[in-house]
Amino acid sequence: MRISKLSARAGLPVGTVKFYLRTGLLHSGVATSATQALYDDSHLNRLKLVRALLEVGGLSLAGIRRVLDAVELHDEDPAEGMVRVQEALSGAEPSPATVPVDVDTARALVEDLGWHVRADSPHLPMLARALNALESVGLGRSIERFSHYASAASELARQDQELLERTPVEDRALTLATSTVLYDAVLVALRRLAGEGHARPGTVPEPRMAEAL
Amino acid sequence: MRISKLSARAGLPVGTVKFYLRTGLLHSGVATSATQALYDDSHLNRLKLVRALLEVGGLSLAGIRRVLDAVELHDEDPAEGMVRVQEALSGAEPSPATVPVDVDTARALVEDLGWHVRADSPHLPMLARALNALESVGLGRSIERFSHYASAASELARQDQELLERTPVEDRALTLATSTVLYDAVLVALRRLAGEGHARPGTVPEPRMAEAL
Repeated sequence: MRISKLSARAGLPVGTVKFYLRTGLLHSGVATSATQALYDDSHLNRLKLVRALLEVGGLSLAGIRRVLDAVELHDEDPAEGMVRVQEALSGAEPSPATVPVDVDTARALVEDLGWHVRADSPHLPMLARALNALESVGLGRSIERFSHYASAASELARQDQELLERTPVEDRALTLATSTVLYDAVLVALRRLAGEGHARPGTVPEPRMAEAL
Repeated sequence: MRISKLSARAGLPVGTVKFYLRTGLLHSGVATSATQALYDDSHLNRLKLVRALLEVGGLSLAGIRRVLDAVELHDEDPAEGMVRVQEALSGAEPSPATVPVDVDTARALVEDLGWHVRADSPHLPMLARALNALESVGLGRSIERFSHYASAASELARQDQELLERTPVEDRALTLATSTVLYDAVLVALRRLAGEGHARPGTVPEPRMAEAL
């Protein structure tokens, strides 16, 4: 298809698609003349991916670029690719200008949970920033609440890992990247929806699981 | 204290503090002359709150303003204030430019869970955007995964509500706002840390809960 059709199907202005082509977020089409090229579903899918990570995931264009590079690396070196996807996702977070980061306390808390994470895990500073922010607004660290969240996180991560292992190896890096970012958004939305119901006791029974869906 | 000391204690440039004063995010100090004023811990705490919501929560300044207005309203009308806090938190999300929002499907899924949420809940579009994005990148809706996330969200919301009910009424709106935003960040970080461990089987035992912390 021509760029105009690609743009229309992606719901994006042609200028935006051209911008993604220039910056390498979108791979080139097959040139049919000096000024025209043809695009296929791989281009459409890439545009949808970029928009999803941008609009729902809140990643920057530079962050998306790092994620895509890591996914590409995964084709050659799966193990390293998976590590890089996680790094890219955490590096894509908004960088904090002034909140000091006390990574040691975050690491100690996580080790106290019995979790073994990499010493240089990019997610430790992310946790540290959140804990520091809680402290700075006077909410301190609620041990009880932290335990609840750690439990839930551990259980979700275990289930997600099982699902990821059922994904074909060649799709795992991209699936890890997109599902991490997009299920963050699902989780945040569901937690708030559940909170609305729980604020009026009796209105949110436990999910009726499989048979309800 | 003078504005210079307030800035130093908050770790912010004086210009930033002055900007927050001009835009009303920070309440005025007590004027001691035409060009000078004195500030106290309430100003320092407000600055910490604004920075935490901005840097860790990723809210915009306009979003923070809506949250603060809702917290203020809560002093006069607690019930309405709590509703407004939730609205402000969801309105503060980055607005999606092109991802179409199919709120009906999201509502049906949530109703199938047996949850009763407000028909105009501001969190339904948030969930709808995330589900649409999953669909658009070809991850579709995994019923199994959605159930896991709904379960975890419901349990966390129930526990959070219990903790909120132990908070003095006058502090509830602010606690709801800050803890919603900051625990989102805690949860996201913990889920990723747990994921790192689960990716190497056997390295993440279940959290050892209370005795570990």
